[in-house]
Amino acid sequence: MSTSPTDNARRDRFLADLLGVMAYGELSAFERYSADARYSPTLHDRAVMGRIAVQEFQHYELVSARLAGLGVDAEEAMLPFQPAIDHFHDRTRPADWYESLMKAYVIDTVSADFYRAVSQYVEPQSRQLIQQVQSAEDVTEILRARLKKALSDDPRLASRLALWGRRLLGEALTQAQRVGFERAFLSGLIAGQGSDVRESDSGVGTVRDDAGAKHMVADLMKELAGNHSRRMTQLGLTG
Amino acid sequence: MSTSPTDNARRDRFLADLLGVMAYGELSAFERYSADARYSPTLHDRAVMGRIAVQEFQHYELVSARLAGLGVDAEEAMLPFQPAIDHFHDRTRPADWYESLMKAYVIDTVSADFYRAVSQYVEPQSRQLIQQVQSAEDVTEILRARLKKALSDDPRLASRLALWGRRLLGEALTQAQRVGFERAFLSGLIAGQGSDVRESDSGVGTVRDDAGAKHMVADLMKELAGNHSRRMTQLGLTG
Repeated sequence: MSTSPTDNARRDRFLADLLGVMAYGELSAFERYSADARYSPTLHDRAVMGRIAVQEFQHYELVSARLAGLGVDAEEAMLPFQPAIDHFHDRTRPADWYESLMKAYVIDTVSADFYRAVSQYVEPQSRQLIQQVQSAEDVTEILRARLKKALSDDPRLASRLALWGRRLLGEALTQAQRVGFERAFLSGLIAGQGSDVRESDSGVGTVRDDAGAKHMVADLMKELAGNHSRRMTQLGLTG
Repeated sequence: MSTSPTDNARRDRFLADLLGVMAYGELSAFERYSADARYSPTLHDRAVMGRIAVQEFQHYELVSARLAGLGVDAEEAMLPFQPAIDHFHDRTRPADWYESLMKAYVIDTVSADFYRAVSQYVEPQSRQLIQQVQSAEDVTEILRARLKKALSDDPRLASRLALWGRRLLGEALTQAQRVGFERAFLSGLIAGQGSDVRESDSGVGTVRDDAGAKHMVADLMKELAGNHSRRMTQLGLTG
């Protein structure tokens, strides 16, 4: 089956949206993490959080450059997602540094899983970029080690952080679905917007009908929740 | 005249102090600027402020690495300056994004002048690092251009920003003198701590007596204020 101009336009739009939401997510994470860093218990911890924030900014710059390479204005691509992401951060303000640490840990890993899953539907160069940006295993490892230390230093943190982790996951999934559906992320190119059967070209994933799309989204959310739960267990917390 | 062990110890202490105050200044500027970036009027401006903040962090890392190279713990070197610098930031909280921009412009340039002047008294490798870190002319240029644009877009900003600039300068000079004298920066190695005449070895500046030291400090403050005033004039503001 050949690709129509409409399909191409839709695919371009999807890619610009995907990179736009990633770029804004990274820019705002940079600002939030670096502001939170100030409340770190030690100067060493401040520097660690700072370095994580700087990495978010560097990712923002990479994604921004890719948008420019595609002829898309980064600011325009980001703008539609600003209210939702700002709202997300407003709803998940950490009460202290340990909650900031947990927020970075949960949000970075859940969104990495999300973007990696979605990246299979975009053209190879952007897919590679997304996978590169979203596989910062070293950062996750630093956050995990620091959280483990905090939990072993003060076991009373456990129940509070477990609860906080669950809330973050809930907000993140709600966010992913809302942004996804509103902007036709998950229902658009990934799934077959009302059409019956549509096939992929050049490595862009195959999608089926609307019911299939809903199923896929539900599966993705389940997968994200499952991975999150495993990561909480690694911290000795109940997912 | 030969150098006594006491002189060497004093010189090492002076260098650790100088790099320590620079490192903490940069780490805290990074956090403040990136937090302020969030209030930028456009996403483009947010990214610009973010990049400036990231550069502060990179400078922090360079200075930190130099401290490590000298066998000094960066955290220990920074700690004594934390209260004074935090206090400085608390006293100079920008009321909006334009005041943030002006703060970055004034503080970066005044402190660059200060550190460059003081760097002549340290060993060559650290001197070179200080001069490298403190000559971010590109950042100054970006800030200057953005401030000029803001002032031309809204001429009512001029009197507020001129006043704010004067206040920032006053706080910065007070800070430089306080930190300098408390930690024996300016009265210690640079100036001749109560002794009569002390000469330099290996490129470390020559200093004279206590009255001479006070004179030097006064001259330095005058120079900082003069440079500041010229930079304000470049913005079309009264220094």
